[in-house]
Amino acid sequence: MNCEVAATVKPSSSSCQRLSSHNFRGLLDSVDAFLFDCDGVIWKGDKLIDGIPEALHMLRSIGKKLVFVTNNSTKSRKQFSKKFHTLGITVSEDEIFSSSFAAAMYLKVHNFPKDKKVYAIGEEGMLEELTLAGFTALGGPDDGKKTLDLKSGRVFEHDKSVGAVIVGLDQYINFYKLQYGTLCVRENPGCLFIATNRDAVAHLTALQEWPGAGCMVAAMCGSTQKEPIVVGKPSTFLMDFLLQKFNITTSRMCMVGDRLDTDILFGQNSGCHTLLVLSGVTNLATLLDPANDIKPDYYTDKVSDILKLLE
Amino acid sequence: MNCEVAATVKPSSSSCQRLSSHNFRGLLDSVDAFLFDCDGVIWKGDKLIDGIPEALHMLRSIGKKLVFVTNNSTKSRKQFSKKFHTLGITVSEDEIFSSSFAAAMYLKVHNFPKDKKVYAIGEEGMLEELTLAGFTALGGPDDGKKTLDLKSGRVFEHDKSVGAVIVGLDQYINFYKLQYGTLCVRENPGCLFIATNRDAVAHLTALQEWPGAGCMVAAMCGSTQKEPIVVGKPSTFLMDFLLQKFNITTSRMCMVGDRLDTDILFGQNSGCHTLLVLSGVTNLATLLDPANDIKPDYYTDKVSDILKLLE
Repeated sequence: MNCEVAATVKPSSSSCQRLSSHNFRGLLDSVDAFLFDCDGVIWKGDKLIDGIPEALHMLRSIGKKLVFVTNNSTKSRKQFSKKFHTLGITVSEDEIFSSSFAAAMYLKVHNFPKDKKVYAIGEEGMLEELTLAGFTALGGPDDGKKTLDLKSGRVFEHDKSVGAVIVGLDQYINFYKLQYGTLCVRENPGCLFIATNRDAVAHLTALQEWPGAGCMVAAMCGSTQKEPIVVGKPSTFLMDFLLQKFNITTSRMCMVGDRLDTDILFGQNSGCHTLLVLSGVTNLATLLDPANDIKPDYYTDKVSDILKLLE
Repeated sequence: MNCEVAATVKPSSSSCQRLSSHNFRGLLDSVDAFLFDCDGVIWKGDKLIDGIPEALHMLRSIGKKLVFVTNNSTKSRKQFSKKFHTLGITVSEDEIFSSSFAAAMYLKVHNFPKDKKVYAIGEEGMLEELTLAGFTALGGPDDGKKTLDLKSGRVFEHDKSVGAVIVGLDQYINFYKLQYGTLCVRENPGCLFIATNRDAVAHLTALQEWPGAGCMVAAMCGSTQKEPIVVGKPSTFLMDFLLQKFNITTSRMCMVGDRLDTDILFGQNSGCHTLLVLSGVTNLATLLDPANDIKPDYYTDKVSDILKLLE
């Protein structure tokens, strides 16, 4: 079953059409806000994807709201805003919804006790969002260089007041952090196990994919034999915050992403229109593979294709 | 359903009786070889479990063969033999079947090409067994201190002649190794992904459990989205080598272990008698939990209980 055949089976929710001048004008008329994933959509590593500044400028100029919803937990919203600035694009912190922010907000809306601590398997941005939300966080980069003493009589001590372990992408993952997080989840009563996301790989550099948060999260699943609460895409947890901020119904939003199992599923789960771009981890063969049952409404090679479609 | 009730349902394959003077004499008569797991059965970390030397001596003195089948991949058979010696027990390399040996033998019996290399996410013993079997291994402890340069233009190079990635317990796990292994599995055509075992935790020290090979293996599953070939328990791959060496039918063997999902399942899958000891990761509550459907033939607190049962 290819993508076009799927369209005849599920015409409304997953028509899966290549974006064209015709259907893009229809999409523009139905949508007030575009939600963009970042890695593989806006940039790869530290490199903007061709035509992004012009495409975003065009959408803003015709009155569309732009929102950036990223599973990358290594940066805070503030750090993402700076990255946009460095790349020559003005995006405010308010327009950014990262999985690091989602993790902090999850604790906040669930009234995580202020006398409990959070153990972070992740990078600076995760700690920054937790601190900003008023939580006490341990771990993170500080534990990246810690080593272990496996001498026979030694006991590895962990803080019994840790009430949540948050796991995201962590390029400084090590055995110390895995043991710390595992002990908290296994031994601290009621300790939450939260994953920012489960992306298998991430475009940490322009030319290559690297193990994503899904790698570190799986490691913790392997040792704890527990499954995490996922707060990033495809979970729709962040959508409530987005709706509060922008006051637009999800049926007037379009999610633009490069991953089927996070971006497109998040858009579908939220009731948004969905547009897959082939500039990131998904290629056309994967999209059209009969084994793939996540079909976006539309697909195109890259975001800036929309410039030509409006000419 | 408790253990005793289960006995009435499946009397032959899983009678799950507490070991007693009576049934132990019956077991001794039916068995020519005892297969022992090590961690949690013989020792915890570097500490022998009470009464082990006397119990093993007694079994040898009445003509039983002793075999040690361990999922711990961090040591080679030679290193295990030395560890036994240090602890005051004489065990020859020939009596030891480790998952590090299993990984090397898996490649051997499947005619792994000698011009291909093996990438090892594991410790010294894994490399030692691979080298002993004539294979060229990369990774292991050498890569434990390697760091990464995620600068935009950089490409992380991996050896295209790696034809197998073997993953076991690795206390020096890091992002470098995970990226190396992931690239080999994802990009080298036909590259094997082999797990020594998937134990969630391991008694690396006497007083505590630590993330086991199941943690590192899960991390690689998370980033590659592939499932490994498992060569350690509960896979019965090692049993063929054991049978060749000792010329005893499996129905005349008894597997003694502390883990239900590896040791006891391995014993059952091989057609051995099975004895669970409660000196390791499994307690009585877990054994008797209705959710547990792996029931050994017998259980007892620790191996040396057999000394009293023969008095």
